[in-house]
Amino acid sequence: MAVLTPCLALVLCVVVSFLVLRSRRQSKVVDPRGKTQADFKPWVDQDLQDDSQVPTGEDEEGKWADSNVEDDVPHVPYSPQRHPEDKMLQRSHHFYALMNQRRSVRFISPEPVPREVINNVVRTAGTAPSGAHTEPWTFVVVSDVDTKHRIRLIVEEEEEMNYRQRMGDKWVKDLAKLRTNWIKEYLDVAPYLILIFKQTYGVLPVKKTHYYNEISVSIACGILLAALQNVGLVTVTSTPLNCGPQLRLLLKRPPNEKLLMLLPVGYAAKDATVPDLTRKPLEDIMVHI
Amino acid sequence: MAVLTPCLALVLCVVVSFLVLRSRRQSKVVDPRGKTQADFKPWVDQDLQDDSQVPTGEDEEGKWADSNVEDDVPHVPYSPQRHPEDKMLQRSHHFYALMNQRRSVRFISPEPVPREVINNVVRTAGTAPSGAHTEPWTFVVVSDVDTKHRIRLIVEEEEEMNYRQRMGDKWVKDLAKLRTNWIKEYLDVAPYLILIFKQTYGVLPVKKTHYYNEISVSIACGILLAALQNVGLVTVTSTPLNCGPQLRLLLKRPPNEKLLMLLPVGYAAKDATVPDLTRKPLEDIMVHI
Repeated sequence: MAVLTPCLALVLCVVVSFLVLRSRRQSKVVDPRGKTQADFKPWVDQDLQDDSQVPTGEDEEGKWADSNVEDDVPHVPYSPQRHPEDKMLQRSHHFYALMNQRRSVRFISPEPVPREVINNVVRTAGTAPSGAHTEPWTFVVVSDVDTKHRIRLIVEEEEEMNYRQRMGDKWVKDLAKLRTNWIKEYLDVAPYLILIFKQTYGVLPVKKTHYYNEISVSIACGILLAALQNVGLVTVTSTPLNCGPQLRLLLKRPPNEKLLMLLPVGYAAKDATVPDLTRKPLEDIMVHI
Repeated sequence: MAVLTPCLALVLCVVVSFLVLRSRRQSKVVDPRGKTQADFKPWVDQDLQDDSQVPTGEDEEGKWADSNVEDDVPHVPYSPQRHPEDKMLQRSHHFYALMNQRRSVRFISPEPVPREVINNVVRTAGTAPSGAHTEPWTFVVVSDVDTKHRIRLIVEEEEEMNYRQRMGDKWVKDLAKLRTNWIKEYLDVAPYLILIFKQTYGVLPVKKTHYYNEISVSIACGILLAALQNVGLVTVTSTPLNCGPQLRLLLKRPPNEKLLMLLPVGYAAKDATVPDLTRKPLEDIMVHI
């Protein structure tokens, strides 16, 4: 204590403040693979944390240019097809009935599915609207047996880690039940895996943030699900926890692309089952004013 | 300086560290309406910043229960309709052609649209998958003339502010062109406005975070867009900047609901135009491995 002069004390204050600030700043930067015990939150997809929705100052000008992309394009007349009211009502009933038969299915048949059907389904997803018409999506369609298996190994390894970390003491008690949660046989079995990447920024001609890219790509995924249901194929919408960076490297996607969803696609297995769930009735999801 | 004893210096260190920590923590909490000049980023929807994807420690147990909701439900056989390959191909072509005619339309006819068609479109959106089957969406369908006009006033006021803030000096030069960007006549004219809220957490029976609620609700929005296109109605997908809190209060939605999208819905106006944009070809959005 005797060596602490007032000046030294002031210097100490500054150093402590600096260190505190620095440690707080560092805790914001998450290296997807460099997990420490303290930072590790296995149930958060760390790739999703790079919140590309929030622009930094440097992108401000780019955003402005972006958001007016449509202003610079000439307009053309648009006359979509119209149906008489009874036909509209009938079409709306029919489409609802079709979509309401859709379920998330984890039991997928290995039977082959025509490539051109998958191409058309992806084309359909690509008709989704997107912020400033950036079309910020990449659909990686995997049918290669070896690549599917590597994907499975990555997803299962991370899933098992998630469950172990999350469960703690409960882990040992309920092993058999949990096992079904991280074994993803369908990743080998399904004829196609569709991995949907969001492009968080564009690189041509200059780097530009893609605003609302996650919302845009999720909308495209909704249309993809409708297209799959329309042709009688099944899938399960999964957001593989923490696997994004590894899968991105495996599939050789550039750093501006982040994995948003992984869909195994095929016919339902003959003995497929689904949980006996119901959907909320209209009055629980809609308010009319 | 003479009064700075070593003990006082240490106390000072602690106080400074505390203040630094506190100020950094406070800067993370954004009051949607309490904008300061430094914090104000008009092009970021502040409602979207409450990143409900990232769970806090207190919700950990709830998440665990959530994510296994399907384990507690008995399974039932599932045999979706299958089509022969030529039929699948034909259906995939047809649905792609239908969806590819969809455009974002800002010129909407005031003609009435049957309520039951809107009900079926919302029912269809409600068939979307969601994290842990939480169905975290509320569709507020507004046909009331006065409420539509109040919505317009809120959206236009914020939009104008956004443009003014963003433009700075360029503002005066290009007023006429910009004006079209914040005047949203369709909010009065369209027979329906559908405001889609994401439920960031559930309140019954206990408060539980809804994981991936934004992705789930965006997927539902994609299916909604497909359903609208299927009946020959048009819309434009908008994410009204910063209007979420005001619109939530106007529509009397609870605090766990955040506005994600606003869709004006109706027939296309007779003189509707759209920007002459094209979509990326398949080879630019799909990679096959």
